[in-house]
Amino acid sequence: MAGAVRRGDRRALARAITLIESTRADHRATADALLEALLPHTGNSVRIGISGVPGVGKSTFIEAFGLHVIGLGHKVAVLAVDPSSQRTGGSILGDKTRMVDLSREPDAFIRPSPAGATLGGVARRTREAMLICEAAGFDVIVVETVGVGQSETAVADMVDLFMLLLLPAGGDELQGIKKGIVELADLVVVNKADGDLATTARHTVADYRHALALLRHGEWRVPVLSCSAVQKAGIDTVWTTIGEHRALTEANGQRASRRAEQARAWLWSEIRETLLDRFRAHPAVRAELPALEAGVTEGAVIPTAAARALLSRFLGDGA
Amino acid sequence: MAGAVRRGDRRALARAITLIESTRADHRATADALLEALLPHTGNSVRIGISGVPGVGKSTFIEAFGLHVIGLGHKVAVLAVDPSSQRTGGSILGDKTRMVDLSREPDAFIRPSPAGATLGGVARRTREAMLICEAAGFDVIVVETVGVGQSETAVADMVDLFMLLLLPAGGDELQGIKKGIVELADLVVVNKADGDLATTARHTVADYRHALALLRHGEWRVPVLSCSAVQKAGIDTVWTTIGEHRALTEANGQRASRRAEQARAWLWSEIRETLLDRFRAHPAVRAELPALEAGVTEGAVIPTAAARALLSRFLGDGA
Repeated sequence: MAGAVRRGDRRALARAITLIESTRADHRATADALLEALLPHTGNSVRIGISGVPGVGKSTFIEAFGLHVIGLGHKVAVLAVDPSSQRTGGSILGDKTRMVDLSREPDAFIRPSPAGATLGGVARRTREAMLICEAAGFDVIVVETVGVGQSETAVADMVDLFMLLLLPAGGDELQGIKKGIVELADLVVVNKADGDLATTARHTVADYRHALALLRHGEWRVPVLSCSAVQKAGIDTVWTTIGEHRALTEANGQRASRRAEQARAWLWSEIRETLLDRFRAHPAVRAELPALEAGVTEGAVIPTAAARALLSRFLGDGA
Repeated sequence: MAGAVRRGDRRALARAITLIESTRADHRATADALLEALLPHTGNSVRIGISGVPGVGKSTFIEAFGLHVIGLGHKVAVLAVDPSSQRTGGSILGDKTRMVDLSREPDAFIRPSPAGATLGGVARRTREAMLICEAAGFDVIVVETVGVGQSETAVADMVDLFMLLLLPAGGDELQGIKKGIVELADLVVVNKADGDLATTARHTVADYRHALALLRHGEWRVPVLSCSAVQKAGIDTVWTTIGEHRALTEANGQRASRRAEQARAWLWSEIRETLLDRFRAHPAVRAELPALEAGVTEGAVIPTAAARALLSRFLGDGA
């Protein structure tokens, strides 16, 4: 399958991603072998995370952005991290009719979020899908996320640049943006800067520029841009700015160190989550955890004592 | 020992904290019993976290603040979270001469940061010391931290209100404030608002007020105040504002739910860290981890595959 993926065979690509999304043990062994074969051919893309509250125009933006980038000769893969997709039946990207024009492009590949009970599981499979897309020759990877739980952090931890789309409106609260998300952004773009909202968009850009200048860190000054995805205006500047970020972070080594740190963090998150899954699945832990956890949140049991009691059951010693 | 602690016997209090800081297994059992006996008498304090870069005047502020609050009839305990204290020999609070007047007060108790290799270990012992101080009748607990690693997050996770001290200066970067710290703050105070710096302090207050208004969340509007700890000016307003925060969060239930969530998070962090400690200490993991981790960061090994290989050694099965 690795050869077909590398030749850019779309059906092989889709099958490969289905394989790594499978939870069957025998599939996992095949998936590991596939990933190992593809690994030397990964890493050659610009990895872009995009988040924004519902209503900000994410699909319209990604479609306009994808078409623009394809027009410049690139191949674009759009993936998603949406841990709620299992419950909601796919709230984002479940429906390709959202990006009709982009999905028709031979140089575009759109894949809905894998279903998964945990964010960790969804994030892992998206990371692996990203590697497969890179091996298939896609040099621009867009990972979309909705503002649910910790999904923005998970996406920011797997990309080179995390972009936050804003509405032309007041501050975070008015826009429904969760605390700490703006701090994750490498790039902020105010969408819908057209028609009646053009003036409001200008004010929003100025406000966030001011705030981010005050809170900014490092060599890269988080730019605040505006665009109109519907009118396809300002998309070129977004792409140019992403190129500037890439040039700077390649030159100063931050891109390489960020990716190395992301890989290391991914390893440890795999280890941590598997250990916790095993812990939670242990019969004695399952039996005793609910009462102890309730006691802890009510302030009736010291957390350290509860932890020690449960751990001694799991580890089978006087832990 | 529990009886003596509850009577407010200072020597018993110090001995109790030394006991919970011990890593000896037999001490741990005694410490658990002590904490269990004291637990019903804990929780009746205002828990305040204070952070700020070196040079912001944290000691001077805490001393002025502590004396002010004692003057109003409260009892103040000052604890610290400084994971670097083992290496540096106690960079904060190691030296009581930093707060001469406060340390002489019968209603003040100052305790340096416990030494500890990991932030988790230091944080756990500070949480437990906080409970002991509460049982001893201290109704205002100040937990000081330096801007090292994740220590601010650890402290924000154990208090009712997290206060950030700022210098009268430009933005975060100029002040040396790490990314994301301002977002943790429930209260921002610009210190050194006196003499030549008074005007700059006013500008800093206005700038941060503007930025935080844009990024603010929830019912509590993060106030930006100024004070001069040296001149003991503005300290009363800081205390009044803390009282307003307490009144609001007690009325809307946020204080109780924050504490319940903190206790639950503490339980899981104990479990997670112990499992990881055991994992790291496993002979096969110790032997194979360095090469696999290096392979992962160099992009030569898939993190999921490396994790599975190590986990199967630790768990002794085909994990």
